[in-house]
Amino acid sequence: MKTDILIVGGGPAGILAGQTAKKVDPELRITMVKDEPDIIIRCSEPYVINGEVKLRDIIHSDDEMIGSKGIIVLIDRITGIDYEKKTAMTRNKREISFNKVILATGAKPFIPNILGKELKNVFTLRNTKDTRNLKIISDKAKNAVIIGGGAIGIAVGSLLRKKGLNASIIDVSPHLLAGAYDAEFSQRIEFLLKKKGIKIFTRKRVNAIKGEGEVEEVLIENKKIPADFVVISAGVRANTELAEKIGCKIGRFGIEIDKYCRTSLKDVYACGDCTQSLSFITKKPVPSQLATTAVLEGKIAGANATGKREEFPRIINPSVTVLFDSAIGRTGLTEKQARDEGIEIIPGYGKSMNKYPSQREAEFIENKLIFEKEGKKLIGAQIFGGKEGIDERIDLLSLAIHQRVRIGDLCHFSHCAHPELSPPPFSEPIVMAAEDALNKI
Amino acid sequence: MKTDILIVGGGPAGILAGQTAKKVDPELRITMVKDEPDIIIRCSEPYVINGEVKLRDIIHSDDEMIGSKGIIVLIDRITGIDYEKKTAMTRNKREISFNKVILATGAKPFIPNILGKELKNVFTLRNTKDTRNLKIISDKAKNAVIIGGGAIGIAVGSLLRKKGLNASIIDVSPHLLAGAYDAEFSQRIEFLLKKKGIKIFTRKRVNAIKGEGEVEEVLIENKKIPADFVVISAGVRANTELAEKIGCKIGRFGIEIDKYCRTSLKDVYACGDCTQSLSFITKKPVPSQLATTAVLEGKIAGANATGKREEFPRIINPSVTVLFDSAIGRTGLTEKQARDEGIEIIPGYGKSMNKYPSQREAEFIENKLIFEKEGKKLIGAQIFGGKEGIDERIDLLSLAIHQRVRIGDLCHFSHCAHPELSPPPFSEPIVMAAEDALNKI
Repeated sequence: MKTDILIVGGGPAGILAGQTAKKVDPELRITMVKDEPDIIIRCSEPYVINGEVKLRDIIHSDDEMIGSKGIIVLIDRITGIDYEKKTAMTRNKREISFNKVILATGAKPFIPNILGKELKNVFTLRNTKDTRNLKIISDKAKNAVIIGGGAIGIAVGSLLRKKGLNASIIDVSPHLLAGAYDAEFSQRIEFLLKKKGIKIFTRKRVNAIKGEGEVEEVLIENKKIPADFVVISAGVRANTELAEKIGCKIGRFGIEIDKYCRTSLKDVYACGDCTQSLSFITKKPVPSQLATTAVLEGKIAGANATGKREEFPRIINPSVTVLFDSAIGRTGLTEKQARDEGIEIIPGYGKSMNKYPSQREAEFIENKLIFEKEGKKLIGAQIFGGKEGIDERIDLLSLAIHQRVRIGDLCHFSHCAHPELSPPPFSEPIVMAAEDALNKI
Repeated sequence: MKTDILIVGGGPAGILAGQTAKKVDPELRITMVKDEPDIIIRCSEPYVINGEVKLRDIIHSDDEMIGSKGIIVLIDRITGIDYEKKTAMTRNKREISFNKVILATGAKPFIPNILGKELKNVFTLRNTKDTRNLKIISDKAKNAVIIGGGAIGIAVGSLLRKKGLNASIIDVSPHLLAGAYDAEFSQRIEFLLKKKGIKIFTRKRVNAIKGEGEVEEVLIENKKIPADFVVISAGVRANTELAEKIGCKIGRFGIEIDKYCRTSLKDVYACGDCTQSLSFITKKPVPSQLATTAVLEGKIAGANATGKREEFPRIINPSVTVLFDSAIGRTGLTEKQARDEGIEIIPGYGKSMNKYPSQREAEFIENKLIFEKEGKKLIGAQIFGGKEGIDERIDLLSLAIHQRVRIGDLCHFSHCAHPELSPPPFSEPIVMAAEDALNKI
């Protein structure tokens, strides 16, 4: 068969690439090859495990999200691509000739080489089967151990704890969320999780997962942690095999792409978890396996594969995590990352409430803004507090980073105030943190 | 007595002016003259009337917010200023000589000339006495009539309705919130309020408030609306008398100030509700009697009165209103205002949910972005939906207006996503509205 654009992979990046290309030029024949039927909203899987959301509510049919947009969907797998002939071969012996190909091959969970990792009831979190099995086992289990204290690991840990299980989180780093947050914010999360009864083991390496056929305990140093099941949440690695076979340049974190989502080969684009992009701030390669990055890169790749020239604004990795009734968010560089890059910084702190203090549901909110000393521009932010108002403040600060906003701009920025929705006019935490930074110049 | 800086008025503008000046130069003698002791958080007054918040929780002592910062507070009133001698006279026969004076004289409610407006139980909403009396009367009354369908009027109307009263809102304009929102958004609010049982009378002029000594009914055209009490909420007017006496230039909306919060007279600054500033977008005079504007102008006036040269970023009037479980927010120009100014525009619409649709508490959110056609820059926005996520999106869009962000920047802006906090990555309403606008170019 012949197609104008071949999309390899049907995750958020692939879907948005297809939808965008079709929107730009409805005449184009676009074919998507994906492994499995249906689309699962992956960020919602922890809520299925915990029982707050039904699996059927987070699954959409291919037809609904792809087919109805005029994109041909093949449940199949690309086994090889003849780049010279611009032809792809599939497992089901299809031959697809194409003009442009968009690689959206995603990522797979990274599984550290732990003794006993192949035991029954050791899970990762990447597909519907994992979710189904984790739901079933956590319905009756007592003890859960999570290996990996990143955003997903601690979110799953806290949802399992909310469900009533004993949960332990193990991480080799000095702190949970290391890399994404500075230690002071990680400590706030550790304090919160401990208060909720979660056991935290940082700076600890797992020696082995033990059990007779199925998991019984996890060994760290001299400790045995009882475990009815284990979730390994140690990050993901880009799926680059196909790209490598074609001859695309592969970087440390994934397929190398430029700001137009082009790979090193003409007519080969890539987007989403399989790619390596550059940091907006340091201009160096940086991992960004977030659905939001995938969606944005998908749109750019899709548009540019039709002949447009849209630019990807580069990576600042905004993200937010919910833990019980609190949330924590971050964007840009941490103070530590900035210092490691040799960037001199000015940090500013603000502490306030997310509503007027007289409102019953008012909760605290505190943030840290990181400005680079030379140009006084915002390069990073971290916020912790009650659930409301974290997410959109991170979005605002992400826009501020992209717009190269300076300390003074944030000291004098026009915001609104309402007793039920925000702090009083004189205590917006972003302004307070900017003023704190200004005082340090 | 002698002072370096004299501040006339103790509202948000005056307080922040004093606090900021003292922070910049702790050695300065700063004296504030205010009419009444204590500070009331005025935006919270409707919640006191409705019973959700206690009056004592929204009153702060002068000492807590002003005195403890090293500012001298006099409960008194400035009756005149000898500008040549730089001396102020007070009602209590004090003579205060000063180097700089900051006018923060605030505003008073505008009361239209309605027959019967002096009857008992006709209120405005400006001081603690009004609040106390409205609390008492609404505890037992059945029928409330609000004259004026602006943000305060409809908020008070909906809180009284929530309290169980029959509420009617009357406005001369074709729509509620006219001026702040385009008709399509006003209509959404009218629909919501009607659904909640509030009677709305738009394009209606009040002929008279009737009653024997105290209010009994309000007459509009051929209709009589029963009323146990009436709240007149028809906007405010700047208090400019003192400024006028000194010789400051007075504009249509208040004391004229430049971007440094200087009046037309040397060493005389003004800030807050008593001033008239310029629109960031049109550069024309515009009213902005918001507490957030007062706080910002207060800081600028306070800093500049010490010799600094900070700039006020001009008015875009971001604001947000809560009505039952919904909220509505706006910033910049409306489509109508832009067209009236002769600005050609491109509107963009987005409709989404404020959480992942699989989350039980997910509520709809819809927004309209207004870009100017020539430079493709954002000049206004309106958002309506569930309470969460309106306020901070307005803040983000306000920053975007000040940063002169273009359509493409918002199409490709990096935001975060989380099932409990935001729409899925592919349906952020701001991005959807920007993409909609882009499609119209």
